[in-house]
Amino acid sequence: MSNTFGNIFRLTSFGESHGKGIGGVIDGFPAGIKIDFDYIQAELNRRKPGQSSLTTARQEDDKVEFLSGIFEGVSTGTPIGFIVWNEDQRSGDYDSMKDIFRPSHADFTYQQKYGIRDYRGGGRTSARETISRVVAGALAKLALDQIGIKVYAYTSQVGHIKLEKDYTSYNMNDIEKNAVRCPDLSKAKEMEALILKIKEEGDTIGGTITGVIKGCPVGLGEPVFEKLHAALANAMLSINAAKGFEYGSGFNGVEQRGSEQNDVFITEHGYITTQTNHSGGIQGGISNGQDIYFRVAFKPIATLLREQQTVDMEGKETVLAAKGRHDPCVLPRAVPIVEAMAAITILDYYLLAKTNRL
Amino acid sequence: MSNTFGNIFRLTSFGESHGKGIGGVIDGFPAGIKIDFDYIQAELNRRKPGQSSLTTARQEDDKVEFLSGIFEGVSTGTPIGFIVWNEDQRSGDYDSMKDIFRPSHADFTYQQKYGIRDYRGGGRTSARETISRVVAGALAKLALDQIGIKVYAYTSQVGHIKLEKDYTSYNMNDIEKNAVRCPDLSKAKEMEALILKIKEEGDTIGGTITGVIKGCPVGLGEPVFEKLHAALANAMLSINAAKGFEYGSGFNGVEQRGSEQNDVFITEHGYITTQTNHSGGIQGGISNGQDIYFRVAFKPIATLLREQQTVDMEGKETVLAAKGRHDPCVLPRAVPIVEAMAAITILDYYLLAKTNRL
Amino acid sequence: MSNTFGNIFRLTSFGESHGKGIGGVIDGFPAGIKIDFDYIQAELNRRKPGQSSLTTARQEDDKVEFLSGIFEGVSTGTPIGFIVWNEDQRSGDYDSMKDIFRPSHADFTYQQKYGIRDYRGGGRTSARETISRVVAGALAKLALDQIGIKVYAYTSQVGHIKLEKDYTSYNMNDIEKNAVRCPDLSKAKEMEALILKIKEEGDTIGGTITGVIKGCPVGLGEPVFEKLHAALANAMLSINAAKGFEYGSGFNGVEQRGSEQNDVFITEHGYITTQTNHSGGIQGGISNGQDIYFRVAFKPIATLLREQQTVDMEGKETVLAAKGRHDPCVLPRAVPIVEAMAAITILDYYLLAKTNRL
Amino acid sequence: MSNTFGNIFRLTSFGESHGKGIGGVIDGFPAGIKIDFDYIQAELNRRKPGQSSLTTARQEDDKVEFLSGIFEGVSTGTPIGFIVWNEDQRSGDYDSMKDIFRPSHADFTYQQKYGIRDYRGGGRTSARETISRVVAGALAKLALDQIGIKVYAYTSQVGHIKLEKDYTSYNMNDIEKNAVRCPDLSKAKEMEALILKIKEEGDTIGGTITGVIKGCPVGLGEPVFEKLHAALANAMLSINAAKGFEYGSGFNGVEQRGSEQNDVFITEHGYITTQTNHSGGIQGGISNGQDIYFRVAFKPIATLLREQQTVDMEGKETVLAAKGRHDPCVLPRAVPIVEAMAAITILDYYLLAKTNRL
Repeated sequence: MSNTFGNIFRLTSFGESHGKGIGGVIDGFPAGIKIDFDYIQAELNRRKPGQSSLTTARQEDDKVEFLSGIFEGVSTGTPIGFIVWNEDQRSGDYDSMKDIFRPSHADFTYQQKYGIRDYRGGGRTSARETISRVVAGALAKLALDQIGIKVYAYTSQVGHIKLEKDYTSYNMNDIEKNAVRCPDLSKAKEMEALILKIKEEGDTIGGTITGVIKGCPVGLGEPVFEKLHAALANAMLSINAAKGFEYGSGFNGVEQRGSEQNDVFITEHGYITTQTNHSGGIQGGISNGQDIYFRVAFKPIATLLREQQTVDMEGKETVLAAKGRHDPCVLPRAVPIVEAMAAITILDYYLLAKTNRL
Repeated sequence: MSNTFGNIFRLTSFGESHGKGIGGVIDGFPAGIKIDFDYIQAELNRRKPGQSSLTTARQEDDKVEFLSGIFEGVSTGTPIGFIVWNEDQRSGDYDSMKDIFRPSHADFTYQQKYGIRDYRGGGRTSARETISRVVAGALAKLALDQIGIKVYAYTSQVGHIKLEKDYTSYNMNDIEKNAVRCPDLSKAKEMEALILKIKEEGDTIGGTITGVIKGCPVGLGEPVFEKLHAALANAMLSINAAKGFEYGSGFNGVEQRGSEQNDVFITEHGYITTQTNHSGGIQGGISNGQDIYFRVAFKPIATLLREQQTVDMEGKETVLAAKGRHDPCVLPRAVPIVEAMAAITILDYYLLAKTNRL
Repeated sequence: MSNTFGNIFRLTSFGESHGKGIGGVIDGFPAGIKIDFDYIQAELNRRKPGQSSLTTARQEDDKVEFLSGIFEGVSTGTPIGFIVWNEDQRSGDYDSMKDIFRPSHADFTYQQKYGIRDYRGGGRTSARETISRVVAGALAKLALDQIGIKVYAYTSQVGHIKLEKDYTSYNMNDIEKNAVRCPDLSKAKEMEALILKIKEEGDTIGGTITGVIKGCPVGLGEPVFEKLHAALANAMLSINAAKGFEYGSGFNGVEQRGSEQNDVFITEHGYITTQTNHSGGIQGGISNGQDIYFRVAFKPIATLLREQQTVDMEGKETVLAAKGRHDPCVLPRAVPIVEAMAAITILDYYLLAKTNRL
Repeated sequence: MSNTFGNIFRLTSFGESHGKGIGGVIDGFPAGIKIDFDYIQAELNRRKPGQSSLTTARQEDDKVEFLSGIFEGVSTGTPIGFIVWNEDQRSGDYDSMKDIFRPSHADFTYQQKYGIRDYRGGGRTSARETISRVVAGALAKLALDQIGIKVYAYTSQVGHIKLEKDYTSYNMNDIEKNAVRCPDLSKAKEMEALILKIKEEGDTIGGTITGVIKGCPVGLGEPVFEKLHAALANAMLSINAAKGFEYGSGFNGVEQRGSEQNDVFITEHGYITTQTNHSGGIQGGISNGQDIYFRVAFKPIATLLREQQTVDMEGKETVLAAKGRHDPCVLPRAVPIVEAMAAITILDYYLLAKTNRL
């Protein structure tokens, strides 16, 4: 009951890190959309390992193979199956993990819940699982593009290095200009330096990603239980290592007074709009036509290139050796995943909103 | 598709602020649970208006009437219908709101989405809607109590006044000792003073609530898309005025390194546990047996006792007059709502986890 | 997980025969529909007991009270709560049933499944539960009326008395002209006579109801698992005492050859249509624009006005006395229920189909 | 919203007749089940074409490849992805169908609903889609086997040749002893002869399949909307060419009186049971511990080896040529599909029932 996301537009995913591949079934994708396969692969490439010195040195091609639902390059309304085959992994690397619970990983909880786990590379809990999200997100973006909705995300904090200005101060086209995916090019350099330093120390570091959705029409969100921001929170917190979500004024806004935070309605060019946007584009759980923006917190990756104290399956103390090839910071590769989950959510709620009136 | 919450244990709610009442149907509640009606009413009383000088002066009894699903004081496994009748509201008060969009309320988005809205007291968007959550939450708590799970919440920040220590420093039994529902009795006094000052100024203020779940067994949570923390985020952000959610180390943890944040496994009294709990009791989306804790941000209430600039349905500028009786701060009355949504979520995932093995 | 029906347009129902009332929450009803309260009550009156000599002598008014979701006579898109209060029942009548399992009722299965049951009048298993379906169905019909879809049902068989001709031979306006709700006025008389004879004997009799949906546009149905006829089957078999469902050529068609049964496509008045309609208006699980028709089998009611052999909760043999006031045949009152479930299903799939393209 | 089946145990399927393959994702399969791959393949072989002179001459190997969710031969609780690759099809055969609507097929409805269709071999509407059901069903049977539940199906009617006796008169082990899958070996010969004759004539014929579930415990089924028989009806009518469903006394029982049809409770060997089983093992929508039995009607296959009159996409009259290799009767190969859908449903409701009590 857990590997399907969405109401109308739905992704059902499968696959483990060291199994045959990562894939899924996308159901409810609107019929008649022209599929740009190069675009989808380009999105996957933004997520893949080995793309810069900031990420793991593992090399994986991550080519997506579509299995159904597309005919002569156009979506048919039938389910879109797809798979990204896993390449030759060094499964042997993981034999030592068979009986060990890695700190702050899901080895212990999976073992307890299911009585069994595929320990090779984290199995189902590996971030390779997010491949299926990026594929579905790329399809969603193709559909959203047709109705003028654009989804962006960028790294807004790495460790203590934090963008002080909000998204309106940046050019979204600058995001891809550096490896850390930060539109503030000067902060980006600081972030890169920090990540490289952390990497050298065999350690890891957390950060935040900011998401921005432009061009979203009024009326998306299904209160009271499927408010648009609740759906976005659910989407974001389903991503590996995510620890927090806020939208609009978020946690900082709690110190404000209502008289400071309320977004005054005004009329501009004949349209009702708001003077400020502390609401983050969502009021009462429904999009109000302004930009939607939110921030997601990611913890430092749990896999360190250092020895760590832990216990084995019998509860005996042991030492986890430092090996494998891992990212020192999840942020740069998580940017396309945040975008993907946002796009999936927005398309789903766009389709849902079509049912509000006869 | 929006007024039902949960997978197995499900609340479907209905009702508007100035309609006949607020109620719902609770489906999937386990059979055979003894219903403590006094307890449920006591929970509702924690939410009702007029309970202290910090809340609105409106007086509503909010007595719950159960309509089905309980036989001779015991749950039968059939749906539990219930209603809290609205008392004589001053609907006339709201005639002036008919054609006006109140800033940072949902008047505009509802009107656009549905083409019609019940403007009296905010209609469906009123926080009176949360009555149904508290009823369902009280039932969930009765069930959770039988399996040793306890759910707590408390006010951890009001405006700039913030608890510096985490939940382990406080006695959960102190929460109800003051009107603001804060277990730090000295901070509580500061918070109360601030709220009263804000109230006098006709303004409002935000804050945060911390939730704590104790006694949760290992194994709750259904990755990859229904991770336990994603479900809690979804639950919390469905509450009126909520703007953010974090669990465990949350947003602050992003500045940490992995070597600081990882929770080392140890064996204690023959059980595997963790030395620290930055994970917030959830690893890989599954409860690990430690305390679950999280924090929810609430914005200042949008209704002010001050005049505000806005537009009417034609887009013409107008002034929203200051009237009605409203809370200056949502926090004190939101504490039982946070607890309720947490209890509903935990019971739902407890039942789901029963299906993981044959 | 069991008292909610539908995907977008959803009914969640509650209530027991001898509890406070029968009601529900209707979610996903399109906003902006004018509500004809007299029509809804008239539909309920078609279901209520005591309307003719063919039905139980019990007198219940069954007045529906709407609790939310309607403002100034128009649906608002928010959930529509409603209740039909139970009137003074002779609960005492049922004390003798406390420890007895009535043959072919659900006493035994509810007791085993839930460990407890409300035995008064069958509790949740009473056909009074269908009140909520008729209310939701009446609302659905109001919406379908606006798009030109009409739903009909009639009694097509009582015991061995069976209409030999299909629905195209009858005038749907004749259905309500007799108490048995059969448009063949001569057969109707035979059916009535049979029912009265059976009643006198303290026995009961089964029959079939035919459903017809006219004006349904092409494109409703969501294959491969939510084919329109599968959804109708699911809807019909959720009705008390239903034992079978067939659509189009149904069970009789299995003796035919493909060359006899295939519906040849032709062009008429510029539109593609079919020469025959053995498909019952549904091809590949999707409506094809022709009339949809189906047939539902109902078993004889299990409650007899005769003594019956049975066992008590300890498994001891005992005799079930003949008392109470019951229908000798479920058919006449089941006609509006079949219509209601068909209308609910069609509206739901009409709304779903809006999401097939961007 | 249409290619997922089930609540807890869920199959999401994909694939077209002439695409890359047919596959799916099985979610919610209990962890810890040993997977017998040979058994699963053997089940698929019962469905595959070319297995006897009664079926199409097409030769397809239909080997299933599992992609995830199984580790060292045991289910892990994570989603089980799988695919059966399509082999070299004669897609060219179908070019002539590009612009034609085949009678009683779904060409017209798919084209209208989605504005596009994969016309090669029927695309998504091909019965090859049922491969994914047989894979999921085989897994379900492996789980059900561990709790003593057995699922059977057999051909009970072909054209006018009908078994007069019910399932209790036959040995379920005789089903596989003939190509038509009928446990009445003498009737089986008649059926085979009829099918071969029909085949020679280039025509097709319908029939019925009877399903039997033995060893089902009391308590499966979630009334009032997810009654066990409603779930079975929904499952069966989702199968290609299915036109009707009945369980227990079904359509024939409508001529009976209550005094004939009621199943009297008795005590046998200390257990409460029923003297007869007209209820078909389900009372009030919940299994009562007796055998569950039902019957499914299948229409004659729409593809004929004869010329047929039809129209093209412009509505112009045209003649559909007779070509391709097709089954003259769906029954023999539908038997394992009926079993599969029954097994999927029963396992799903078995898991659901675990949540009825704390």
